[in-house]
Amino acid sequence: MSLIHDDLPSIDNDDLRRGKPACHKVFGENVAILAGDALLACAFEHLAASTKGVSPTRVVRATVELAKSAGAEGVAGGQVMDVSSEGLSSEVGLERVELIHLRKSAALLEGAVVLGAIVGGGSDEEVERLRMFGRCVGLMGQIVNDILDVTKSTAELGKTTGKDLVVDKLTYPKVLGMDKSKEIAQKLVEDSKEILAGFDTPKAAPLCAVTNYIAGKIN
Amino acid sequence: MSLIHDDLPSIDNDDLRRGKPACHKVFGENVAILAGDALLACAFEHLAASTKGVSPTRVVRATVELAKSAGAEGVAGGQVMDVSSEGLSSEVGLERVELIHLRKSAALLEGAVVLGAIVGGGSDEEVERLRMFGRCVGLMGQIVNDILDVTKSTAELGKTTGKDLVVDKLTYPKVLGMDKSKEIAQKLVEDSKEILAGFDTPKAAPLCAVTNYIAGKIN
Repeated sequence: MSLIHDDLPSIDNDDLRRGKPACHKVFGENVAILAGDALLACAFEHLAASTKGVSPTRVVRATVELAKSAGAEGVAGGQVMDVSSEGLSSEVGLERVELIHLRKSAALLEGAVVLGAIVGGGSDEEVERLRMFGRCVGLMGQIVNDILDVTKSTAELGKTTGKDLVVDKLTYPKVLGMDKSKEIAQKLVEDSKEILAGFDTPKAAPLCAVTNYIAGKIN
Repeated sequence: MSLIHDDLPSIDNDDLRRGKPACHKVFGENVAILAGDALLACAFEHLAASTKGVSPTRVVRATVELAKSAGAEGVAGGQVMDVSSEGLSSEVGLERVELIHLRKSAALLEGAVVLGAIVGGGSDEEVERLRMFGRCVGLMGQIVNDILDVTKSTAELGKTTGKDLVVDKLTYPKVLGMDKSKEIAQKLVEDSKEILAGFDTPKAAPLCAVTNYIAGKIN
């Protein structure tokens, strides 16, 4: 696996530790909002204009997936649920926090994986199996993120931690406690790898490496 | 023409005069930003998922057009230029204000018309002629908007007027004066109708009606 890890783009930890200011800090909130809109449109343009050699039918199908993963049923809708749930009692339960995480984070990973599968010529059955993989890893990644916000210092993580507690965000540790959250994350890692086991091993290796990379952050 | 006007959706002037609060006033800025993102994604989903009977090649081509009209080269980029130009001297000139208006407003009209032309099966030549029509009407509409902001009262227009002056926005009246602005708007109306004259008259009638409707606001 080490070779595969070497192939992943490296992250400049010095940059992370220094903490680069976000877009809205540098250019103002109005420009940051418009940059977000422009980049969202750019994603669709890239998909439609740059996928030479892919049948237009597949490009149209991928466009629907991208829109669903970004829009009201995906990241944007999940983020609305997330900010609307701040301060809610943990009694609202696992179902709600899981739905938020599935929309906000898992939809993004699901979209990324499914788009690759569609554009890469995957069969319907392969696309649906990879959808489940993306959903598992996305949910796992958000649970890991929730855990790190509690267990790591700002210096260790390279971004401000403890933020979820400050705004009383609905997270897995809040609803289920730390041990149960780690257990669920581990189960999702196993589920993800089980799904990948059905694919050609060398081709699935990068997805396996990403899974290990995210899961490894809480160890 | 009166029949065609009757076919246009009517605007409830009482609602306009009462002044309904905007999304960010009712739901907060964070939710309004996310609603914008979700609706942008929804436009692409609608185009890709709901255009039955249209060849995927045309849908992909329309997707590129939609992205360009909304993104960095279109509305979002034009709006960035617009807010960045507040307070600039009128000496920056006509070229800059025209570029802002072409991106911010004309790109939207151009996109709307071109998408219809592509999805409706127009030839390349028809698409490009309608693109010029959309650009003319869009630019004309923005100049009309600039003029109304100066000449009409808030009660007459149903929205707050005089706002451009408050933030010292770069507008046609500011750069060229009122008479010259009206003259250019009128010339654009004539150009628009000349382009439409090349199409089947009954089919082009709604576009002609929209042109008259917008232009009529300054008379």
